[in-house]
Amino acid sequence: MALIVQKYGGTSVGSPDRIKNVARRIAKFHQRGDQVVVAVSAMSGETNRLIGLARDISSNPTPRELDVVVSTGEQVTIGLLCMALHELGVPAKSYTGGQVRILTDSAHTKARILDINDAPVRKDLDAGSVVVVAGFQGVDEHGNITTLGRGGSDTTGVALAAALNADECQIYTDVDGVYTTDPRVVPKARKLDKVTFEEMLELASQGSKILQIRAVEFAGKYKVKLRVLSSFEEEGEGTLITVEEDSQMEQPVITGIAFSRDEAKITVVGAPDVPGIAYKILGPIAEANIDVDMIVQNVGHAGATDFSFTVALGDLAKAKKALEDNMSQFNAKAIEIDDTMAKISVVGVGMRSHPGVASKVFETLANERINIQMISTSEIKIAVVIEEKYLELAARVLHKAFGLDQA
Amino acid sequence: MALIVQKYGGTSVGSPDRIKNVARRIAKFHQRGDQVVVAVSAMSGETNRLIGLARDISSNPTPRELDVVVSTGEQVTIGLLCMALHELGVPAKSYTGGQVRILTDSAHTKARILDINDAPVRKDLDAGSVVVVAGFQGVDEHGNITTLGRGGSDTTGVALAAALNADECQIYTDVDGVYTTDPRVVPKARKLDKVTFEEMLELASQGSKILQIRAVEFAGKYKVKLRVLSSFEEEGEGTLITVEEDSQMEQPVITGIAFSRDEAKITVVGAPDVPGIAYKILGPIAEANIDVDMIVQNVGHAGATDFSFTVALGDLAKAKKALEDNMSQFNAKAIEIDDTMAKISVVGVGMRSHPGVASKVFETLANERINIQMISTSEIKIAVVIEEKYLELAARVLHKAFGLDQA
Repeated sequence: MALIVQKYGGTSVGSPDRIKNVARRIAKFHQRGDQVVVAVSAMSGETNRLIGLARDISSNPTPRELDVVVSTGEQVTIGLLCMALHELGVPAKSYTGGQVRILTDSAHTKARILDINDAPVRKDLDAGSVVVVAGFQGVDEHGNITTLGRGGSDTTGVALAAALNADECQIYTDVDGVYTTDPRVVPKARKLDKVTFEEMLELASQGSKILQIRAVEFAGKYKVKLRVLSSFEEEGEGTLITVEEDSQMEQPVITGIAFSRDEAKITVVGAPDVPGIAYKILGPIAEANIDVDMIVQNVGHAGATDFSFTVALGDLAKAKKALEDNMSQFNAKAIEIDDTMAKISVVGVGMRSHPGVASKVFETLANERINIQMISTSEIKIAVVIEEKYLELAARVLHKAFGLDQA
Repeated sequence: MALIVQKYGGTSVGSPDRIKNVARRIAKFHQRGDQVVVAVSAMSGETNRLIGLARDISSNPTPRELDVVVSTGEQVTIGLLCMALHELGVPAKSYTGGQVRILTDSAHTKARILDINDAPVRKDLDAGSVVVVAGFQGVDEHGNITTLGRGGSDTTGVALAAALNADECQIYTDVDGVYTTDPRVVPKARKLDKVTFEEMLELASQGSKILQIRAVEFAGKYKVKLRVLSSFEEEGEGTLITVEEDSQMEQPVITGIAFSRDEAKITVVGAPDVPGIAYKILGPIAEANIDVDMIVQNVGHAGATDFSFTVALGDLAKAKKALEDNMSQFNAKAIEIDDTMAKISVVGVGMRSHPGVASKVFETLANERINIQMISTSEIKIAVVIEEKYLELAARVLHKAFGLDQA
């Protein structure tokens, strides 16, 4: 008997039939004696429908009221899933975020979980009931409904697992695990049996969409055993995301390759090469609430320097305007933008003991005459920005070069 | 400056554009200095969509979970309406039933309001904000979400008006007031400026669908000044539903004519004419949770009697089965059913001082050769059951006979 937290995403609960399937899966665990807590997303499409209604009313909906509207999506799912469990004779009780209660801060549309009251959940579990909790939502100290932001249901699942000290947190999704890279781009991509939190974090932040970054951070911090599984397959162990690196085995140098097409490069040309210039350029960007990813400042000559950085494609127009409005501050010659960029990252904890990884990345890309425009590294990751048209080629050759094609 | 509670039904908030219209109307009241509390229904069609989802999961959804699902409809509306008010620069805050809190009993899908905590609402009103409350829903003492049953948003509006001691409770709907009878049937039907609670109650229970009976009862009990208005017209005073009969004016004898096609007559033929026979026949009907409307027991002869009663058409099959299963109890010759019945009622407090009303009803119908099958009276109402095919004719001739055609 184990205490298991399961999280089902929007596709897994996308129709009444799929909800019935999820109920059957939960019933199996319940019948073998496990205690099961389930966190669910809104039915696929529902959150977008609700946001669409809000946008029809206002181009800039009030965050508090947007949370009131959007949080109904998960509330519908918890009720429907409990009905489906009751149909199977499985006792089950639903909880909204406010009912649990999942206490968050008051940052509407992107709230953070502060505390979970596990007492009512434990009481129901001890009484033999499955507990179904609305993902993505909570309540602040004043009783206002909050949401955790897109993908927040993963975080709800992990936070519940942490609060309940669960044996495992299972994230059910429409893929059967974490892959060495995106199989749609690299047919030889393989499912990983295990990946460390650090690697998963790099893979997630570098473009892998399977798990929300905050959920992985949370799981790592509270040492929650996390497993990614497909809700559409009966069997399969998925991918286990572990705290500990497996020291008994020879580490593969590279675990996976992540990439993102959602990149734009901005270059401030001919800025004065003086201390504080980076702050003068990036200050307005930060004020406009835009995340900057990679930053490169070239060696200056004749008192001038070129300063480049990348932002998400969706933020490009806003970033450009913020710079243009502040041109007088940093006195540059021109602002150049390039929206045909992509980022590709090789990730692996084995990199720590293998210093040759960076040069192998550069060599592999050079062999294909792919020009590297920017480079960023961490202890377990090397990321490069290249022209988007070379992305698939780069993914395939790197996948092969690091031996990921073979099991 | 007044404190006004407004209730908008599903049709009035049926689309983002209609919600914007409602916001403009509320803004007018707010701008002239009124304090406004608004209760809203789900957008039209939404409650049925949600019930449909539940029925796809289970033919008999758990009431607690059905309430969790269905209550999301009103929650969406409160958020959208607040956004629309914010767009107009009007401060507004939404409340779910649980947030107010509207305390109910635990009778899921048909809960009754026990108490309303008006403190947070008053605080917001005093701060100059419009308060928007989800109709139809509440929360029980354990924090479970409850709903008040169909049409319950009217009750929410009236209960809020009572709790806040509001100057007026305005029920906005898709008609511009209460009419002497249904204008689709009698073209000469006129809008009433005033109607008493007693009359409205009889009109509502006799088939007028404008207001929910429980809301009228509630308003009468707590002396809430109630007004029915159209949400689609800019001007118009609607119909005021008052506590006091206007003693200064000559009362019209009859205020309105209500009717219902939703009637079925059941006759138990040749039952023994002995004490207790009515109980033996109606006991099984009550046990099957079926409301009986009119009851007629004919004078017996040769030790036998015919016993007739009416039920709602939707309950006919269930009622017939309940009788057949218990035939041995009351030992009758046969059970006859007639599902082509209609009920028509003339209603008016003026009837109290005009004893000739009943005979005028009978005379008017007799002149048209319309046979009366059953009769039921109260202090302010005379209702008769006739063949459904004569219903429109009966409505027109009675409307004329009691002088309702003229203003």
